[in-house]
Amino acid sequence: MNWFDNDDTNITPEGFYFSGISAGLKDSNKKDLGLILSPANSICTGLFTQSTIRASCVDLCQQRISKSGNLIRAILINSGHANACTGDLGLRDSLKATREVAQLLGLNDDQVLICSTGIIGVPIPISNLVSNLPILVDKLSNDNSRDIAEAILTTDLTIKRSLIETEIEGRRIKILGIAKGSGMIYPNMATMLSFLVCDIGIEKNIWDSMIKEAAQISFNAISVDGDMSTNDSLIALNGGNKIDPKYLPIIKEGINIVCQRLAKAIARDGEGANCLIEVRVDGAKNNFDALKIARKITSSSLVKTAIHGCDPNWGRIISAAGSSGVDFNLSDVDLFIGEYQILNGGNLIQFDKEEISHYIKSQMKGQYLVSDTVEIKINLNSGKGMGRSWGCDLSKRYVEINSEYTT
Amino acid sequence: MNWFDNDDTNITPEGFYFSGISAGLKDSNKKDLGLILSPANSICTGLFTQSTIRASCVDLCQQRISKSGNLIRAILINSGHANACTGDLGLRDSLKATREVAQLLGLNDDQVLICSTGIIGVPIPISNLVSNLPILVDKLSNDNSRDIAEAILTTDLTIKRSLIETEIEGRRIKILGIAKGSGMIYPNMATMLSFLVCDIGIEKNIWDSMIKEAAQISFNAISVDGDMSTNDSLIALNGGNKIDPKYLPIIKEGINIVCQRLAKAIARDGEGANCLIEVRVDGAKNNFDALKIARKITSSSLVKTAIHGCDPNWGRIISAAGSSGVDFNLSDVDLFIGEYQILNGGNLIQFDKEEISHYIKSQMKGQYLVSDTVEIKINLNSGKGMGRSWGCDLSKRYVEINSEYTT
Repeated sequence: MNWFDNDDTNITPEGFYFSGISAGLKDSNKKDLGLILSPANSICTGLFTQSTIRASCVDLCQQRISKSGNLIRAILINSGHANACTGDLGLRDSLKATREVAQLLGLNDDQVLICSTGIIGVPIPISNLVSNLPILVDKLSNDNSRDIAEAILTTDLTIKRSLIETEIEGRRIKILGIAKGSGMIYPNMATMLSFLVCDIGIEKNIWDSMIKEAAQISFNAISVDGDMSTNDSLIALNGGNKIDPKYLPIIKEGINIVCQRLAKAIARDGEGANCLIEVRVDGAKNNFDALKIARKITSSSLVKTAIHGCDPNWGRIISAAGSSGVDFNLSDVDLFIGEYQILNGGNLIQFDKEEISHYIKSQMKGQYLVSDTVEIKINLNSGKGMGRSWGCDLSKRYVEINSEYTT
Repeated sequence: MNWFDNDDTNITPEGFYFSGISAGLKDSNKKDLGLILSPANSICTGLFTQSTIRASCVDLCQQRISKSGNLIRAILINSGHANACTGDLGLRDSLKATREVAQLLGLNDDQVLICSTGIIGVPIPISNLVSNLPILVDKLSNDNSRDIAEAILTTDLTIKRSLIETEIEGRRIKILGIAKGSGMIYPNMATMLSFLVCDIGIEKNIWDSMIKEAAQISFNAISVDGDMSTNDSLIALNGGNKIDPKYLPIIKEGINIVCQRLAKAIARDGEGANCLIEVRVDGAKNNFDALKIARKITSSSLVKTAIHGCDPNWGRIISAAGSSGVDFNLSDVDLFIGEYQILNGGNLIQFDKEEISHYIKSQMKGQYLVSDTVEIKINLNSGKGMGRSWGCDLSKRYVEINSEYTT
């Protein structure tokens, strides 16, 4: 790996500024409004929810990026209200908020994006938002990325932030990613917002495909509850001097690392989750099939509840794989939970149920509230396709959280 | 409706015999072995799980029905063990059991089917099963259908049985259906077994398509937890004198009624469920789109937990519809929960949250453990397509049941 962690410092990508404050949008005093400002030469790309029902702010972002991906300079983010299904008012509020930000920063309206997350159908308390914008802008600083990482959260328990750096020809290069998301995570970046910035100049078309590919093996490979949301967005900005194109694979590696870390952090923080579940499928006919099986397993309520009960109920794992729509033969399948083999060429191996149960338990959140990873590995022994997916266990707490969210 | 209920009597379709006993296959003393015997001129059709991983008994049923759908005479059903992922032993046990039944009934092996349901990966205690077959055969009787309805259950709380009758040209015609299933219910008859018999002679090709169409709007329209199983089967037998083909639409109506009743009974008995959720989508471009949206809503964990919390969280309903992959405009949508309208042409109507919450609560299982139906209606106002789907709320009890099933 060419990259090293830099999460301990606040030295974030050069030329980018961040801010996060409480604007009284939520009932609590938590931070709920954030802003990212990028340098003048930055390039922007975005990926958005595939739901038919999208918040108007998502449409607005997509329009503005399509129109001028090379001109976007700022992203405003509010949490608490998704501003989806709020009719004409929703769009008017989005336009108003971005206009105000543009004026404060000396930009055109079209250069500002807005992302919203939270409850559906309730308008943003827009006067609170607008009246707090001067403070928000005032606090912009290169070392405020923790504040914005906090400001974009809703039911999340932890901030999701990853900062890595490398050195290329004596130049220090940094990638920062922040994300929010803990429930409703499925096919295509559902109820998640993620922002990624990198202090190196990369052309639009290369940047577009880099981000798209990274999303495929990260945000599009996680599942919390199989639902997809109205507001999901991944927006990535780069800005700075260009480097020799021969180093682009290194940048690509860094983007993938940050996206996968954020995606895993989202799954690990799944509502009510006690552990991260990582499913790795090898030996499929192609990567697509492997990912399809892996995602079906991490999405299965029966697998998720079994893991929650520390129960090595391998029948549910195999059954989920079988219902993925991918064709394979059970008689080719090797299956492992952690290091413990369960199936060898489809044949059941005598295993110590207590021992595997103990392994699963050891990966659960303990008294220090730190969870680890329950690993499930399947080899179909039918090709070279590989895919990984991440999810979490399904607990009573998930039901509690989601039975009581609006009332 | 041409049919009336006859669930109070035990006068089941003429010429069919049933039996259900406890053969010591389960840890408890509950009934776990059942048998259906059909008249000599009966016609059989079957629909089976679409999972790649199927129990060998499912393959055996399909082979025998394909080979001679006009010769099948008996179905043996064991509960407690799915006999899936049990390797060669699984098939040997299925062959052995059907051979024994055939000998006891004076049939060929090929005329006997076997269906299994229960835990995956653990062999059937086959000697217990075989040694109890003479008792099972001995108890065959036309009025024992309640016993077999009981014998096929696993985690089900209630038996699922529907018996209706009509009179055509002075002739009394009866349809009986029994089913099991309470968890893992999704796309294609997942973890459910259902058996339907009718005492009228209907040709194979007509019978095949009647049953297929009925399954589409019943068993294939329910969802408990989005999982699909290794053993799901619907097997339908008819036998008796033929009727004038002009009366076939009446028979078709009866088949649909019984299948929908059983399907709803399965959803209502979803693991940990407190109510049945019925989603009806009108005004879609076609029936397929309508069903797709309806199913996406009944499958959404976020909708299911909201209903569980008696929370009219309509944003989650609309969001689930939006993520179905069906294209529609929010500005055309009318949405109702029960009789309460929430959206009119996409615009939010002022509604009394407490009142709707009270309506949902009133449909929940009360002290008498009888649940009713929470109705959700959507009109897309874009066509004539209609579809209905049934599901249930998602409770902590679901998590409890499924965390503790094998350990």
